[in-house]
Amino acid sequence: MTNSENLRKIIEIKPIVKVGGAYDALSAKLVETSGFDAIWAGSFAISATHALPDASILTMTDFLRAAENMVDSCKIFPKQNSLLKNSIQKLLPEKDFVAKIIAAKESKKDPNFMIIARTEALIAEKGMDEALRRAKAYEKAGADAILIHSKKNTPNEIFEFSEKWDEGIPLVVVPTSYSSVKISELISHKIKMVIFANQSLRVAHYVISKALKEIIQNESLDEVKINMSSMEDIFNLQEMYKINDQEKMIENDLKKMGYVN
Amino acid sequence: MTNSENLRKIIEIKPIVKVGGAYDALSAKLVETSGFDAIWAGSFAISATHALPDASILTMTDFLRAAENMVDSCKIFPKQNSLLKNSIQKLLPEKDFVAKIIAAKESKKDPNFMIIARTEALIAEKGMDEALRRAKAYEKAGADAILIHSKKNTPNEIFEFSEKWDEGIPLVVVPTSYSSVKISELISHKIKMVIFANQSLRVAHYVISKALKEIIQNESLDEVKINMSSMEDIFNLQEMYKINDQEKMIENDLKKMGYVN
Amino acid sequence: MTNSENLRKIIEIKPIVKVGGAYDALSAKLVETSGFDAIWAGSFAISATHALPDASILTMTDFLRAAENMVDSCKIFPKQNSLLKNSIQKLLPEKDFVAKIIAAKESKKDPNFMIIARTEALIAEKGMDEALRRAKAYEKAGADAILIHSKKNTPNEIFEFSEKWDEGIPLVVVPTSYSSVKISELISHKIKMVIFANQSLRVAHYVISKALKEIIQNESLDEVKINMSSMEDIFNLQEMYKINDQEKMIENDLKKMGYVN
Amino acid sequence: MTNSENLRKIIEIKPIVKVGGAYDALSAKLVETSGFDAIWAGSFAISATHALPDASILTMTDFLRAAENMVDSCKIFPKQNSLLKNSIQKLLPEKDFVAKIIAAKESKKDPNFMIIARTEALIAEKGMDEALRRAKAYEKAGADAILIHSKKNTPNEIFEFSEKWDEGIPLVVVPTSYSSVKISELISHKIKMVIFANQSLRVAHYVISKALKEIIQNESLDEVKINMSSMEDIFNLQEMYKINDQEKMIENDLKKMGYVN
Repeated sequence: MTNSENLRKIIEIKPIVKVGGAYDALSAKLVETSGFDAIWAGSFAISATHALPDASILTMTDFLRAAENMVDSCKIFPKQNSLLKNSIQKLLPEKDFVAKIIAAKESKKDPNFMIIARTEALIAEKGMDEALRRAKAYEKAGADAILIHSKKNTPNEIFEFSEKWDEGIPLVVVPTSYSSVKISELISHKIKMVIFANQSLRVAHYVISKALKEIIQNESLDEVKINMSSMEDIFNLQEMYKINDQEKMIENDLKKMGYVN
Repeated sequence: MTNSENLRKIIEIKPIVKVGGAYDALSAKLVETSGFDAIWAGSFAISATHALPDASILTMTDFLRAAENMVDSCKIFPKQNSLLKNSIQKLLPEKDFVAKIIAAKESKKDPNFMIIARTEALIAEKGMDEALRRAKAYEKAGADAILIHSKKNTPNEIFEFSEKWDEGIPLVVVPTSYSSVKISELISHKIKMVIFANQSLRVAHYVISKALKEIIQNESLDEVKINMSSMEDIFNLQEMYKINDQEKMIENDLKKMGYVN
Repeated sequence: MTNSENLRKIIEIKPIVKVGGAYDALSAKLVETSGFDAIWAGSFAISATHALPDASILTMTDFLRAAENMVDSCKIFPKQNSLLKNSIQKLLPEKDFVAKIIAAKESKKDPNFMIIARTEALIAEKGMDEALRRAKAYEKAGADAILIHSKKNTPNEIFEFSEKWDEGIPLVVVPTSYSSVKISELISHKIKMVIFANQSLRVAHYVISKALKEIIQNESLDEVKINMSSMEDIFNLQEMYKINDQEKMIENDLKKMGYVN
Repeated sequence: MTNSENLRKIIEIKPIVKVGGAYDALSAKLVETSGFDAIWAGSFAISATHALPDASILTMTDFLRAAENMVDSCKIFPKQNSLLKNSIQKLLPEKDFVAKIIAAKESKKDPNFMIIARTEALIAEKGMDEALRRAKAYEKAGADAILIHSKKNTPNEIFEFSEKWDEGIPLVVVPTSYSSVKISELISHKIKMVIFANQSLRVAHYVISKALKEIIQNESLDEVKINMSSMEDIFNLQEMYKINDQEKMIENDLKKMGYVN
């Protein structure tokens, strides 16, 4: 079963699909091992790790390289590529956005690849009707799911949208601003996927800043009271032991063949 | 004054040069803004962010791309490129290591570029005499500083080495295993540079793992009690405001030229 | 003197600046050694070597990597980076194109870096007046030269444009379609730069196709009667001898230091 | 049927497999369309297009990027990746080379992926017995074919080798120096694959050099009497028409949906 088949199946089976944001292979692997269903490779976080604004300065080549690194490190796990959605996030004229969805649909090689169309109509304060109208247009154009965005600090407008959404394709949300919403509430309001887009980036930013400042201010590393993973934890992430196993196997083969005593 | 001139000058002037480990532009910029004198772009941490062991799987091209990203984001700050040192870290035969230092010296384009030769003789338990002999050979071959490594949990063998080191070029240490050593002790034992190589990686690994697990286990993001930077902190890192300023400037110019009302 | 200073100076001094098209380091180095004044790193030819149409499929990252390879191999020579021009080649609304020129001007770090604004008004059959009006607007916005394009098979409309062009900044042409025009005619019509954009690509495409077909059809390589450079010619291009010299130098140093007999 | 299955099948069925050297997607696609059975992505030619010697200056990352470009452009065609062979081309101690073959075999994900072990024992003048001994050791270690190299200007020592080779795995040759050898002679001497490694590079180098010099020396492009492909030929290679078709299809869909009149 491929990653894209997996994602379609999980959306059908699970009450809600949990997606964790990642920006490099390390964070992607931690998303995988923490129990998330899929990985969100978002342009905002990837840009941030390049210390660049998310303003089309990095190119699709750069995002693909970042996503490749994540895919290479997360073998068994389904993952979801957000590149398309991110590149079409601005409130383009409906016609242009529809054209992009058609182009994406036409160039799909894998029928299970999901196109998730994101609408920022609510964020741009175009109103609920425009948001619903656009979402329906995107579904008609070939979108496999709708990501509905809100900048409100409660989930009310998201829930209003989901109540009025009677189409077939599932809804996806990113509760960055309305972070108090409960998973159970999302499920009861017919949300099929929730993306925790930038928390891994923001906790890392916070703790690195703090640790570096403390290292500068203290007389020794031991005085820095911030938890850190051990070198062994990092070796595990890197699958260092696997390299050692391979080296032993080669050594054994060389012994059998008489090259080593 | 170029980065490499800066580094030479700082080594002369400061009692000790503090170097912070980084693995991408975000962590490099945090090293810079936290008050460190230079950035350590080490192969171990860069490999870890690719979820790969530090075993020559990533190539020099990959390390250079990572270092380029850091250099691009840290304009005013001196930085130190550890790539050479890391690629020659194994206990090669002395002749081979000397050949590498000569090759590096011959291909220097910038006379201020520093070659820091790392010896692992103490780690390989070859004894103090071998460590000193190698360090002298590396200086003779053209090294500009010696990185002396120890895996002991006290700085004693490092201090014994520094007492016996009467050569001209400065000594560099990485107190990962003997983390209780005080900066003032390093200074009084003639150490000129201290590298905090992997703490930024390890605190990030720890906190990302923890945050992702809590997101999975809790009903809402608000129940996750881990500090994280605000979106504004990330925008600052990305210099988002600069893009906005540039856009306004262009808009103003277009107004003056009559294209916009 | 930097590359960009060089280009400005050459435009002042020479009756006409000859620019040769290249798409990789090999072709760039051949442009350099053949006596051209500058290198044209065009998006059309670079896309063609990726077997892709010149339709924004390759990204700026890809073009920059290609240009980097060329710059790295052509040390002493001035060269001209056409990336900007190519990315803005479509007949955008005048306001949008002017905005791009302003943005480019504002983000210049090197005052000698030249912005060459390309207008396709004649190709789009918008008429001579529109072409002149646009070119003046581009100069006002900060362009350092105007590339005036024509798809006619005589240079007449180019010459009409140059006669009517009484502004200060120089004119640049690409005589792909009007290939019979003489250099002396261009000079007498106030053209300051001529770009031979795609001939190196097209002769290579022709001869590789022909050679491969003949190899398939003949019984031996010796029966293929197509001229090819010797292995020594390629070694010279690669500066293979330089590597050998460096290896000898290192060997000598190792001898002096007693590591080799 | 995957590329690697294809290659295995073709070796069984065809009297001899013809492999054409390529160094970018353009040359790879011309190899494909000229009737070759497979593509040789050799480190020598790829280095040459970067104007660099084939001396481990480009890294495996660079070679993989080059190979990726070729693979992306040549959809239907089997192709052969020479990267491994090239990286192990030096006359390493037999034990080290055997270790590399074991490592390659162990890390194969696709059972049909072919490991072609190259021996330069004849070039290094180690004699026929050493060449045969090494080839047998490589087969035992897991090689799927043997590339036997010779720098003689006749195929005699290659034929002597093939007469004495009674093992199961096939032999591969690169007739650069003994270019008069006939395909029929190779077949009758039990050679199963012939690689024309660098001819596409060398004819391109020759003709680009010549064309650029003539452009510099002549008064107009029309005076340069060197055959070149038309712009249409290049558009065909780029599949420019395909983009146009896709644009028309999207336009049609937009019409049907009422966005365009």
